[in-house]
Amino acid sequence: MSGRISIIGLGPGNILQRTPQATQVLEQVTDLVGYGPYVQRVEAPHHVIRHSSDNRVEAERARHALEMASAGRHVGVVSGGDAGVFAMASAVFEQVQLGPDTWRTLDIEVIPGVSAVLAAAAALGAPLGGDFCVMSLSDNLKPWLVVLRRLQLAAEAGFVIALYNPRSQARPWQLGEALLHLRQFVPLHTPVAFARAIGRPDEAVRITSIEEADADLADMSTLVLIGCAASRLIERPSGHQPWFYTLRSVVAE
Amino acid sequence: MSGRISIIGLGPGNILQRTPQATQVLEQVTDLVGYGPYVQRVEAPHHVIRHSSDNRVEAERARHALEMASAGRHVGVVSGGDAGVFAMASAVFEQVQLGPDTWRTLDIEVIPGVSAVLAAAAALGAPLGGDFCVMSLSDNLKPWLVVLRRLQLAAEAGFVIALYNPRSQARPWQLGEALLHLRQFVPLHTPVAFARAIGRPDEAVRITSIEEADADLADMSTLVLIGCAASRLIERPSGHQPWFYTLRSVVAE
Repeated sequence: MSGRISIIGLGPGNILQRTPQATQVLEQVTDLVGYGPYVQRVEAPHHVIRHSSDNRVEAERARHALEMASAGRHVGVVSGGDAGVFAMASAVFEQVQLGPDTWRTLDIEVIPGVSAVLAAAAALGAPLGGDFCVMSLSDNLKPWLVVLRRLQLAAEAGFVIALYNPRSQARPWQLGEALLHLRQFVPLHTPVAFARAIGRPDEAVRITSIEEADADLADMSTLVLIGCAASRLIERPSGHQPWFYTLRSVVAE
Repeated sequence: MSGRISIIGLGPGNILQRTPQATQVLEQVTDLVGYGPYVQRVEAPHHVIRHSSDNRVEAERARHALEMASAGRHVGVVSGGDAGVFAMASAVFEQVQLGPDTWRTLDIEVIPGVSAVLAAAAALGAPLGGDFCVMSLSDNLKPWLVVLRRLQLAAEAGFVIALYNPRSQARPWQLGEALLHLRQFVPLHTPVAFARAIGRPDEAVRITSIEEADADLADMSTLVLIGCAASRLIERPSGHQPWFYTLRSVVAE
């Protein structure tokens, strides 16, 4: 079977943070599949057919890509950030496993990108200086009790915690509960950052503490970073936000 | 103070995976600071002064960069992968906090890059499909007992675990002990991948299980990825390694 799928991480909003590899592959595809805003915005030659879909139909979208590749097309499946982090790569491989054996003979490649968590960290300083974990706060794909247990274990481990999907219209209360939960396991002065729309014109960063953190600071475009005992803020001259970084060494609580 | 520091993530070995932003900044710096092989290899205009240093002198190197920036230079501090993940960004901010107040007025920016863990994941399939953690296995900056405890908590949380610095000449036994330790907390068939020199000409990937994993497969250039209960392998036609991915949904053990 000669079809091909390139699962492409577009990087954060700033196109200067998209890799040349991603840009090259976008020039070679015949079809683009993905969440509407990404598929519509991305630069691609005129002959490329754009197949936009809704945010919640990853499995269907992945099957569509696989079917087109089976028919000999070169399908680009696009995600913001990195395609392997809470994005389309897993959804495609899930469908390969469920689908006909011939799908296993397709040429499927994943083109990595600068993920949202790395872009957010860079905008803040160096909050990921030690060991860290990356979690989705959505309870669409896992029970909420599993989310809470993971947060506790991550805090007990001393990981910095990066939260994707902290809040949406359909999930308005989860972040508030998660922050309350974490206050039991980390010091109240632990730094917390809300990094919104990093790399886009409306980029905004807010740094506070787990004690003061207000879930209303987050929306669907926000990544939330929760420090650990080794996290520090460096105060700067007025008009500048502090730098948020984490010591490379483990420190006693 | 008009000096400037750009802490630059060069991305993995493949230059097509370096962002245009990193490439642009490399053309603007007056000085380059970093681990010798990175500083020597990176493309930069002829007038740029290259200050190579050894692998183990991050604090000294960071102070040197800050002193040069204080004298008005534009210093590029380079790291492979992403500069914020077990690389130079934290070392620089640590020295800012310890140094004179004037260092807080410097213009310090972090340019994110495709980290080794994202490049390794892309080469394997989609192993980071669910929640995951990223740890350094080095016990240079934290006690070994802390490493073991974090591994246990990460496994109990159901995180996929990415291990940086799994092995070096000075740390030959740690990875073997870590793998033995993890066998108590994850099923024996859990997939484990050794991703070596990703993006470089000598790139090599090996996929096995936690039961069969042999620490001798790792060296200083290897990233080790340990799956979770939701991780799967997709067998493919002979001559192809299986795809390693993790379901987006949490599954019961």
